[in-house]
Amino acid sequence: MAIMSETFDYARYDRIRPIRWTGDALELLDQRHLPFSTTYLASRSSDEVAAAIRALVVRGAPAIGIAAAWGVVLAARAIDAASGDEALARMQPALDRLNAARPTAVNLAWALARMRAALATAGADWREVLEREARAIETEDLAANHAMGTLGAALIAAGSGVLTHCNTGSLATAGFGTALGVIRAGVAQGRIARVFAGETRPWNQGARLTVWELQQDGIDATLIADSAAAHLMKTGQVQWVIVGADRICANGDTANKIGTYQLAIAAKHHGVGFMVVAPSSTVDMATAHGDEIEIEERDSAELLSFRDERTVAEGVRAWNPVFDVTPHELITAIVTERGVVKQPDAASMAALLRR
Amino acid sequence: MAIMSETFDYARYDRIRPIRWTGDALELLDQRHLPFSTTYLASRSSDEVAAAIRALVVRGAPAIGIAAAWGVVLAARAIDAASGDEALARMQPALDRLNAARPTAVNLAWALARMRAALATAGADWREVLEREARAIETEDLAANHAMGTLGAALIAAGSGVLTHCNTGSLATAGFGTALGVIRAGVAQGRIARVFAGETRPWNQGARLTVWELQQDGIDATLIADSAAAHLMKTGQVQWVIVGADRICANGDTANKIGTYQLAIAAKHHGVGFMVVAPSSTVDMATAHGDEIEIEERDSAELLSFRDERTVAEGVRAWNPVFDVTPHELITAIVTERGVVKQPDAASMAALLRR
Repeated sequence: MAIMSETFDYARYDRIRPIRWTGDALELLDQRHLPFSTTYLASRSSDEVAAAIRALVVRGAPAIGIAAAWGVVLAARAIDAASGDEALARMQPALDRLNAARPTAVNLAWALARMRAALATAGADWREVLEREARAIETEDLAANHAMGTLGAALIAAGSGVLTHCNTGSLATAGFGTALGVIRAGVAQGRIARVFAGETRPWNQGARLTVWELQQDGIDATLIADSAAAHLMKTGQVQWVIVGADRICANGDTANKIGTYQLAIAAKHHGVGFMVVAPSSTVDMATAHGDEIEIEERDSAELLSFRDERTVAEGVRAWNPVFDVTPHELITAIVTERGVVKQPDAASMAALLRR
Repeated sequence: MAIMSETFDYARYDRIRPIRWTGDALELLDQRHLPFSTTYLASRSSDEVAAAIRALVVRGAPAIGIAAAWGVVLAARAIDAASGDEALARMQPALDRLNAARPTAVNLAWALARMRAALATAGADWREVLEREARAIETEDLAANHAMGTLGAALIAAGSGVLTHCNTGSLATAGFGTALGVIRAGVAQGRIARVFAGETRPWNQGARLTVWELQQDGIDATLIADSAAAHLMKTGQVQWVIVGADRICANGDTANKIGTYQLAIAAKHHGVGFMVVAPSSTVDMATAHGDEIEIEERDSAELLSFRDERTVAEGVRAWNPVFDVTPHELITAIVTERGVVKQPDAASMAALLRR
């Protein structure tokens, strides 16, 4: 199978937008009800945005960051201030509440830090500065995804099969996606011949979101149970596992959706490549290694019921960590918009961020 | 934590029976509706038993074998014959249909072979011979499970945590269970301090059956997503993965519920023990190694819907292999009622069957 072309029309493979700023409200595609209902939920205050992030109306590390940035713009509507400095002081409680909405993804804190920094140096036009910064975060994310798509796809030999986990697509970003962006680019270029997606229990991002999103863009994908991944690898149908990241440590250790670590171990066992795709804003140089990352544990109800209906016997306990950490030794390549790091470690990650 | 006692009252830890022979019908606890409805479905013909096996009313390799044996007794009701030989010839089509109900578990074929052999040498009393043989298969299974429970538990250090997959309990056998029998014995003896069970997608045997069954017997268990297993192992809470088997090859390669292979790879990565527990009837010396095993693929609807309600976008494809093969190199110990084989291979498995 030959590579068709290195270039392609991004938009043809990217039809969905999870975040819409209307000028006075943030509309979020309610991902709790996908794929059967595509309704947007409007937030008119930063606390409504925080609640939407907490409730997984919007999810995916980059999308959370973008939503939080627009949340700051909404927080600004609730206060009066003569300068950015003053506004920052008045908005601090609202920003803290936004920051606490999800603990594991670094993009949330990163986006808020960018908004704070913009505000700190702004004068009387601080409202416009905030809105420009939020827009910039969104636009840069889409551009980064396009860049990563090309960089990541270049690692994939023509005719390959890939397996992805969770949803890292347009739905999880400003558009195009991180890992799913690489898959979009790889399919468009004729490199990827087979796409598999794991269900991603317990929230079923793969089953509900990823295969639907790819379907919207005309990309064929096959759903598997998360635990069928190693068996799939053994059949030789998959050459790369491609995933996103919620936080990448200074040494390359990567926090991502629960199950990622298990896939990385299985990939190593089968000689299958393991690619992490995330914007450089996901790299957290303040976190030396994976053991320092707080792993969010969500309500066990996610495992014990389905659509509010109990599926497991009453009184049963469940443990529901929703992220895990893949140590850098198991990662073949980390793809960011700044470039690709193969066999990541502290030195190569530091070099990447100096680029 | 000290071991409390090597002996305990089996019945105290074993309250459920999935198979009841009434004298003219086979009553099967309908496992499709557990844990919220405990209703028995009566089969009055061998074809009804075959249909029940196919539909997963009864599941679990040993239970399927036992149900099939009673299915032969029911097949006998439909014919007249003066001798076992003659009966065998007349029942052959019904036996073939029973045999075809599920392809992966060897116990089904094994139980039918035992029934055939009993019939071949029976005279005019062939109906009684058949019923005695079915009863013997059931009774021996329970006894084997008790024996395996003790043998397997002896491998477990006091205070250990264990993870199991699928359902290998009373529900999957004549009673007590295989892997879950070892867990029952280990808990009763004070060796096992923590029990974790994976959901076991897509049919959720772990979520629906295992944690319920353990709850009935007063054994605490924590449910996890299948893909949280490696993360759990990394936390150090688990010292053994304990699973059943649908077919064990001559070299120790083991077919079991999809996801078992992935757990074995993760266990090896973490230095966690991996124990396979199955009666010696599960060992298929005619199958040299795992590549020769037919892996059943079930309807993709199991991944695409829940309780007949679509959960994944229309038009999406799924791949639903329901078993995988764990190569013997990844297995720490195979426990049968005849004894324990550590680091199984062709020679040690052959030696086991000569015991």
